[in-house]
Amino acid sequence: MPLKLFELVGTDEARPFSPFCWRTRMALAHKGLDAESIPWRFTEKEAIAPHKSDKVPVLLDDETAVADSWTIAVYLEDAYPDRPSLFGGEGGRAMGRMMNWWGDVAVVGGMFPLIIADIPGHLAPVDAAYFRKTREARFGKPLEQVAAARDKSVEGFRRALDPLRLTLKSQPFIGGTRPNYADYIVFGPFQWARVVSPFQLLAEDDPVYAWRERLLDAFDGMARKSPGYQV
Amino acid sequence: MPLKLFELVGTDEARPFSPFCWRTRMALAHKGLDAESIPWRFTEKEAIAPHKSDKVPVLLDDETAVADSWTIAVYLEDAYPDRPSLFGGEGGRAMGRMMNWWGDVAVVGGMFPLIIADIPGHLAPVDAAYFRKTREARFGKPLEQVAAARDKSVEGFRRALDPLRLTLKSQPFIGGTRPNYADYIVFGPFQWARVVSPFQLLAEDDPVYAWRERLLDAFDGMARKSPGYQV
Repeated sequence: MPLKLFELVGTDEARPFSPFCWRTRMALAHKGLDAESIPWRFTEKEAIAPHKSDKVPVLLDDETAVADSWTIAVYLEDAYPDRPSLFGGEGGRAMGRMMNWWGDVAVVGGMFPLIIADIPGHLAPVDAAYFRKTREARFGKPLEQVAAARDKSVEGFRRALDPLRLTLKSQPFIGGTRPNYADYIVFGPFQWARVVSPFQLLAEDDPVYAWRERLLDAFDGMARKSPGYQV
Repeated sequence: MPLKLFELVGTDEARPFSPFCWRTRMALAHKGLDAESIPWRFTEKEAIAPHKSDKVPVLLDDETAVADSWTIAVYLEDAYPDRPSLFGGEGGRAMGRMMNWWGDVAVVGGMFPLIIADIPGHLAPVDAAYFRKTREARFGKPLEQVAAARDKSVEGFRRALDPLRLTLKSQPFIGGTRPNYADYIVFGPFQWARVVSPFQLLAEDDPVYAWRERLLDAFDGMARKSPGYQV
């Protein structure tokens, strides 16, 4: 029985977004595993409730349901040990936990205010209303106000990428000569942004831009082929 | 021939500081290697010039001189492969490069303005003058002004530790159940601060505080035994 992956989509089922689902997509590709995509929308909580989650990604592997992108990565590493390693050993797995938090805080968290106002336009009315209500409660203001100064505030986001930028001076990927899960942790959010927003997060002469290009090319251009803005 | 390590000191030779030298000290202890300490002061450039460096740490291993804490860690991992691993595999080594930059930018860089004004008091006059001149040029103002608002600006430093703080929710060390070089990358700066400054960088109920305590206890309390403030 093939793997199945609940993935966040909006009105276009061929346009999966969510930084976390993209981490899992890249991890599956890294392991050389196919997964049937099950499109899922913000308000379809009941579709994943049987799998004990209210968020995606949720991976179904035969009788096993696994929720949360980090938990899925660890599951895939353990369940498919003969496939290429996502972590490159125990040290990488342990450090990967912190890379994942850095990715959540600095990358997802830093990017979210910059692209948030572009998201409702990709959603059906019921999902757009849900998204706007829950996220405006979180930020305490309208989405358009959150994103208003993004031409300026993008500078702080770019600066926060310095640890990645400096790493790329001596190696093409966080994983070294080839990407590993640490790269997908950071790339997932960039792919999310690319799918939903025309906003330019990176300057073209930024080494992080070139790194993102390499990951767009990975796995026969899987991420690049997915519908998105050319940014 | 035993290993030798040039370490930064001030007026008290028994009080080595420098975040980078402490990374190396912890790495040597992790590998179970002894090293003879060679005290070195900021203005003693000629003492290390033959080893093609103008900064410490510089490690001497028989005929081999290795400068820069990251380069030393990689050297030790390769030269002493039968000793406990610093990186836990190739993935950890590759991700460690980015952890090192995160440590330099967020931890050393975030901490420096907070403790900088306390450093000259630990230095001989010639070194204090050198330190003040070079660092005031870097910050563009007197050291005392750099540190002036530290009771307030420490909050930003603490927030920047969120990726570590969140990681510690599920594991006691960045390296997992035991510390590895990623822990020493971040601990080195904390030990530097502890040696030179009475300023309290961490709240006592912070999980990062408890993590630092665990590393102060590591290797039979090596770092705790070194003279420092009780902060």
